[in-house]
Amino acid sequence: MIGKSLRIIPLGGLGEVGKNMMAYEYDEDIILVDTGIMFPENDMLGVDYIIPDFKYLLDKVDRVKGIFITHGHEDHIGAIHHVMEAINAPIYATPLTRGLLENKLARNGLSQKTVVHTVNAGEKVKVGHFTVEFFHVCHSIPDGVGFGIECPAGLVVHSGDYKFDHTPVDNWPSDYAKLAEFSRRGVLALLSDSTNAERPGWTPSERVIDDAFNKVFREAQGRIIIASFASLISRMQQVANAARAHGRKMAFAGPSMQDNMKIARKLGFLDIDDTLVVPIDQALTMKDREVVIMCTGSQGEPTSILGRLSTGTNRLFDIKPGDTVVLSSHPIPGNEENVYRTINRLFERQANVIYEAIAPVHVSGHASQEEMKLLLHLTQPKFFIPVHGELRQLKQHAKLAREVGIPEENIAVVENGQVIELTADAMQLDEKIPNSYVFVDGSSVGELEADVMRDRESLAQDGVVVVNVILDRMSGRLFREPDINSKGFIGEKDSDALMDQVRKRIAEVVPYSNGSVTQDVERAVRDVLYAETHRKPTVFVSVSKV
Amino acid sequence: MIGKSLRIIPLGGLGEVGKNMMAYEYDEDIILVDTGIMFPENDMLGVDYIIPDFKYLLDKVDRVKGIFITHGHEDHIGAIHHVMEAINAPIYATPLTRGLLENKLARNGLSQKTVVHTVNAGEKVKVGHFTVEFFHVCHSIPDGVGFGIECPAGLVVHSGDYKFDHTPVDNWPSDYAKLAEFSRRGVLALLSDSTNAERPGWTPSERVIDDAFNKVFREAQGRIIIASFASLISRMQQVANAARAHGRKMAFAGPSMQDNMKIARKLGFLDIDDTLVVPIDQALTMKDREVVIMCTGSQGEPTSILGRLSTGTNRLFDIKPGDTVVLSSHPIPGNEENVYRTINRLFERQANVIYEAIAPVHVSGHASQEEMKLLLHLTQPKFFIPVHGELRQLKQHAKLAREVGIPEENIAVVENGQVIELTADAMQLDEKIPNSYVFVDGSSVGELEADVMRDRESLAQDGVVVVNVILDRMSGRLFREPDINSKGFIGEKDSDALMDQVRKRIAEVVPYSNGSVTQDVERAVRDVLYAETHRKPTVFVSVSKV
Repeated sequence: MIGKSLRIIPLGGLGEVGKNMMAYEYDEDIILVDTGIMFPENDMLGVDYIIPDFKYLLDKVDRVKGIFITHGHEDHIGAIHHVMEAINAPIYATPLTRGLLENKLARNGLSQKTVVHTVNAGEKVKVGHFTVEFFHVCHSIPDGVGFGIECPAGLVVHSGDYKFDHTPVDNWPSDYAKLAEFSRRGVLALLSDSTNAERPGWTPSERVIDDAFNKVFREAQGRIIIASFASLISRMQQVANAARAHGRKMAFAGPSMQDNMKIARKLGFLDIDDTLVVPIDQALTMKDREVVIMCTGSQGEPTSILGRLSTGTNRLFDIKPGDTVVLSSHPIPGNEENVYRTINRLFERQANVIYEAIAPVHVSGHASQEEMKLLLHLTQPKFFIPVHGELRQLKQHAKLAREVGIPEENIAVVENGQVIELTADAMQLDEKIPNSYVFVDGSSVGELEADVMRDRESLAQDGVVVVNVILDRMSGRLFREPDINSKGFIGEKDSDALMDQVRKRIAEVVPYSNGSVTQDVERAVRDVLYAETHRKPTVFVSVSKV
Repeated sequence: MIGKSLRIIPLGGLGEVGKNMMAYEYDEDIILVDTGIMFPENDMLGVDYIIPDFKYLLDKVDRVKGIFITHGHEDHIGAIHHVMEAINAPIYATPLTRGLLENKLARNGLSQKTVVHTVNAGEKVKVGHFTVEFFHVCHSIPDGVGFGIECPAGLVVHSGDYKFDHTPVDNWPSDYAKLAEFSRRGVLALLSDSTNAERPGWTPSERVIDDAFNKVFREAQGRIIIASFASLISRMQQVANAARAHGRKMAFAGPSMQDNMKIARKLGFLDIDDTLVVPIDQALTMKDREVVIMCTGSQGEPTSILGRLSTGTNRLFDIKPGDTVVLSSHPIPGNEENVYRTINRLFERQANVIYEAIAPVHVSGHASQEEMKLLLHLTQPKFFIPVHGELRQLKQHAKLAREVGIPEENIAVVENGQVIELTADAMQLDEKIPNSYVFVDGSSVGELEADVMRDRESLAQDGVVVVNVILDRMSGRLFREPDINSKGFIGEKDSDALMDQVRKRIAEVVPYSNGSVTQDVERAVRDVLYAETHRKPTVFVSVSKV
């Protein structure tokens, strides 16, 4: 299928929110955009995280000419070390993104074998048949870019995560001029972020948070603790601005927050002078009114600092009455229960808790519907492919594109694995390549088999009962009382009586078994357990003859 | 503690959303308000549902003079059969609520031993020291009421779930006059619903859905399938109105929907004439443009009709391209993933899916902030106790009450189990009674022990490995190869090699064990498994000597 058309191969992020990764293929050359991870849903039991399925590339690794990264969030860079273990191609990124990438590569022992090139927004890079032009976009992390990707088939615009913030915290708006220039040159296709495609209007500027923060700082009598993502660099700047204005010192709790703060300050993306920052242990000795502490845990993660503060299990310090805690974040779908539980527990500890539902302490980093339409108008693409989103969001984004005049047949709503082929005047769906969830679970990386997940589900429902039967080889009778253990099945106080019943039943079944003793015992055990408890635990029966 | 004060004992619904149940105690008399259930959170593994902890009442069952039910939703009536098994007191409810209660009691074989009295809104009932006056409130089910509860200590207003809908579907607004009359008589305390305390403004009228439904019916070319709660009677009326206006016949899929529809029609709470309704199997033979089907599954429950339609596993019919599916609901926190997954799957099956995020096909049944303030102004209570909500919502409701002028010291924000004592001029916190989660899990009802839940959590994470070692009693050596099984731990293709390693390690450990062989083997097995997989399954080791 190698030819004179551009092939677009979605490896992740289409049909889901997270693990973004796209391959562009022209002739012998392949470039990749982003290498993100996704966090598991509540029913993906025991999974640490999920990475894009890039096995399509494994027999083509020599053809991969470059890996281009739009920005430093985990859903765009988090799988970089998994990709670099298989593919040895140079990485291209803006300065801050590069800083965050190198930190991650170093932690995975990959600094030596990886080449990362710095490319500033506005610059372009030529690799093989591709010329990739970096253009600045606003997002909830500084130094984000989209790409103008030119190859002989035409110019494709890949938006990355973006919003059209007219008053961004770093005063660096999205590059409208470059988008207009692309449109003059003629855009063959636009691939753009669909995360907020269901949201009408225009996403508020990051600046609106300033007012909310100023109110919090004005009213707080005690300490202020602000939880956010470690990668939300612009939020750090806003907290710093408020701290400076209200005469508080700022401290960072937790290594990921500190790491990112240091990288961003070193590279000039955070304007925080030395006199404003104090180490966390010093902050804890200062007057309550004089400090603000930033920490992680805004998604209610139980092991994060905020999670531990809410349960009174944080090592370095505790919540005290009068603390003001701000969750500067929006719960990711699936995290609502954890987030609200954390908020309730902080209230129980007499903190004043401020969160998105009651004050504008967070805004989205993604474009809403009017911004999506603006991007379509600015770039005037011939073809449109919505990316970054579940199917419902891709469908909505396609609807918006139809509304601004893109003909239905020029829009491709596809999910991971569906290859799209573009020539100067046609778009068509090509083959569908295999694409599945690649789970990282402990040290293993791979497609966790469906039955392993199903078994975990059933273990989680009703627990496990282990029965050990030893028979006398000669007589076929019980050599001794069966040994029975359980976990996650029944409380201790009811267990003994029930297990006595099970033992009795086994003793009845064994002498009459004339087929497989194991199967007969198993069936009998299941029956007794279900009759007595209406539960169906996983049952292991081992029968040995001695 | 029996005396001349009113004791208010929250048994459920304070500090959580769901399982509402309140006891009022004066002198020797106790009355109960509501007996609801709550659905388990995502990490309450294997639990079917949760009921209020009413063990406080168990040594006082003869003192319970009546059970008053505000309306027919599950979070207010769902535990009635559990309560009736312990407490034999008459139930008082409005006609529709009574119909739904009797249906539930019959299904649990409790019709004979239960006395249910019909009380219409506007009427009052005297039991012991209490006079309970029923007043009509709008909610997302018809015939809902709140209670004016009078005893010698004073008059308490218990709101139930309410909204101030000026244009309700059944044209029966909340009873402002009665609330004003209460205020003239003097309200000692108001207990009112906090569910939407974080939501500014006024909850839209149920009527706004009419416009959205009319648009759906106007535009749909094929069948229309509308998913909602089986108890959302007013939504059935709205679908019926739209069906009548647009010339479609209406069918109900699923027994719970059909049951509730029949009860509501029989009692006159649904204005649907016989010519409008067709049986579901007839509907399936009609032209697509001529039918609308109502079904359950708006929370994405995998076993519901909509859940099965989304996976192509429904028995009676399938989704076909061109179907319009409406989810007339709001995802309950914790259900977001299931709801969105269902929507995505329906899109995959080429249905046009309409849901709350993209069209006003649902409104809340609960009052928002301005309505909460109105209720406070209408009733002018001396004391205020926010009910129905997590702590964060109770706290917000308390803040609203302070804003309308209730002094801070006259507001009690308490969670389940905290007894409140009221006299004509004082409110104080009394003792805290034990209150915990009572889980219904299979046929067992009780406090699932914390370690059972913890064990299920750990089984769900990494599965289970079962090792069976038989030693020769004389030599202490292995009598034969250890038997090893696992579930939910590792995929089949990697399992054999790993288990060989485990067997080898056991063979090495056994001869050198000079303490507990079981412990030594267990430790060795754990070590090998962790070293090879970085997972920590639950390990069962049984060592027998023969």
